[in-house]
Amino acid sequence: MLRRSRIQSLSPALWSRHMSVVAKSLKYTEHGEPQDVLKLVEDELSDPKGKQVLVKILAAPINPADINTIQGKYPVKPKFPAVAGNEFVGEVICVGENVKDLKEGQHVIPLATGLGTWTTHAVYNADQLLAVSKKVGLAEAATVTVNPCTAYRMLKDFVHLCPGDTVIQNGANSAVGQAVHQLCRAWGINSIGIVRDRPEIAELKEMLKCLGATEILTEAEIRTSDIFKTGKVKKPRLAFNCVGGKSATEVSRHLDHKGILVTYGGMSREPVTVATGPLIFKDIAFRGFWMTRWSKENYNAPERSEMFKEIFGLMENGKFVAPAHEMVPLEKFKDAAAAALNFKGFTGKKFILDMSK
Amino acid sequence: MLRRSRIQSLSPALWSRHMSVVAKSLKYTEHGEPQDVLKLVEDELSDPKGKQVLVKILAAPINPADINTIQGKYPVKPKFPAVAGNEFVGEVICVGENVKDLKEGQHVIPLATGLGTWTTHAVYNADQLLAVSKKVGLAEAATVTVNPCTAYRMLKDFVHLCPGDTVIQNGANSAVGQAVHQLCRAWGINSIGIVRDRPEIAELKEMLKCLGATEILTEAEIRTSDIFKTGKVKKPRLAFNCVGGKSATEVSRHLDHKGILVTYGGMSREPVTVATGPLIFKDIAFRGFWMTRWSKENYNAPERSEMFKEIFGLMENGKFVAPAHEMVPLEKFKDAAAAALNFKGFTGKKFILDMSK
Repeated sequence: MLRRSRIQSLSPALWSRHMSVVAKSLKYTEHGEPQDVLKLVEDELSDPKGKQVLVKILAAPINPADINTIQGKYPVKPKFPAVAGNEFVGEVICVGENVKDLKEGQHVIPLATGLGTWTTHAVYNADQLLAVSKKVGLAEAATVTVNPCTAYRMLKDFVHLCPGDTVIQNGANSAVGQAVHQLCRAWGINSIGIVRDRPEIAELKEMLKCLGATEILTEAEIRTSDIFKTGKVKKPRLAFNCVGGKSATEVSRHLDHKGILVTYGGMSREPVTVATGPLIFKDIAFRGFWMTRWSKENYNAPERSEMFKEIFGLMENGKFVAPAHEMVPLEKFKDAAAAALNFKGFTGKKFILDMSK
Repeated sequence: MLRRSRIQSLSPALWSRHMSVVAKSLKYTEHGEPQDVLKLVEDELSDPKGKQVLVKILAAPINPADINTIQGKYPVKPKFPAVAGNEFVGEVICVGENVKDLKEGQHVIPLATGLGTWTTHAVYNADQLLAVSKKVGLAEAATVTVNPCTAYRMLKDFVHLCPGDTVIQNGANSAVGQAVHQLCRAWGINSIGIVRDRPEIAELKEMLKCLGATEILTEAEIRTSDIFKTGKVKKPRLAFNCVGGKSATEVSRHLDHKGILVTYGGMSREPVTVATGPLIFKDIAFRGFWMTRWSKENYNAPERSEMFKEIFGLMENGKFVAPAHEMVPLEKFKDAAAAALNFKGFTGKKFILDMSK
């Protein structure tokens, strides 16, 4: 028995439409470049049963990990045929007879990973979903589980930070970087960011400071900066690295005694180089963070509910916005994938597939 | 009032000798190569007063950190003029009137660091010393506070190891390496060691296995070894690095998920290189360890007494021996320093200055 008696009684036409929902999905049956292996495929979905939920996907971002998964370069391997995509925000269309905590019309995001989200509709299990207030914008809700949660956990789980403490990061304009600035602003933490020099550096600095960055410096500027020497800003106890190579070494150089450098990405494809002296004499530690593992290990943990509550609270109050992005229709995924990637790798442009129309 | 009334009453001659103890010490007044800056100097010592203790040094090792301190390359800087050396075992000659826990004739080792120990006699404070049973050999007692304690803490403080777990290390023939094998044997832990290839490799492997190493492999052998694949030995949860560079990377490659590489030295003078993938997806961590800091931070901690008790227990029972070494008279320190160092750095030869005669 589906819980849609009201809809059923009001509109037999709507009911029969539910019975024949056709999902348009970006699917792949082998690893390769997204432009080559993804096909837009139509599938008729069966009605949600038991604890299942039929969801209309409204928006789903293109994350670097999604591209790597399609390429077969990510540790998570899908079962073929697979629908691409990992994050989304969707609207509940109808629920199976045993679903108690979700109802038609609610917005939902994924609690589980690798659900296959680059699609117009999907049937998921209720325990794979979390309801989210409609006061949270679609772009914010669609992108919350990876980047803001990564920033949140990295700020919470390695060092006990207090207001007035400092965090430093490279790739400070990345999606995680933008989330770090906003969380630091909310929590009274100094957020120092390092970015590569570029023609529009002044605009980038301004944009990141608007998000809450205390200071944004280029790689050249940080090398000669006295920002931590003047006592204006405390030496960082925590650093984030998504670049690797020399950039990681440079970031770690600014850490205070017992500081921790957390690596969550390696955009330069160069390893992290750790001088022996600071490891031994400054007790600097080098760690890694992978949101997917954390989410699996803490699926139903109270820390996870608390995290979503806090981030959604900030989003509802306009204190946390989605990373700079462009919305593109599902059909234009090839253009988006091409713009997200070039011969060197990721360009840093963020796209969100828009299935809300 | 000195507590030597018995000696005084028995022997006025002895008493007057105490009053004019002349220490021969290796002293330096500027940083440089040990052969150049160390001078054998005689100083008359005044009687121990209050909580002071007059000690006759019996043996004091030459550690790499001692050489680096003399060279000015170590983070600990002495006040000039300085007596070189950090470790020793000595015999209490007489104690000041407020000393309660030490008495004449006892063997003692340093609790404090940087006491200046390359000398025949010294006056220390009682709280800088720890009494040690005479059942502990002089070489063992003289070298306990740096290398065995480093091995002990690195095995205890980073991962909770259980019998049957595995530890891997490079520089497996170093003084710390030898201590690791012996502690692992005592605690039922598999100790896998990596050493550089050399003409006398068979003898070296045999010697290290006699100390408790489960397996010793050369750098070439470990690359093709299936030791962790056959299930014969569990994958290591803990690794120790005193080399750096490619050797450190190779060691870290064998770590199990959530494993930790602890760096305590950098003999190759190359930094530690950390691949991004294992940091993120295997949750490998890179830490450092410095015994000097630990000892300062845990000067009177119960963990420290417990550590000494356990190591001395093993030493008394012949289950823990000093690293392979050569005893040399204080006067021959230049020969020893030259043999401990060559143009590339440390040769790995261990010398203990012998002042027991």
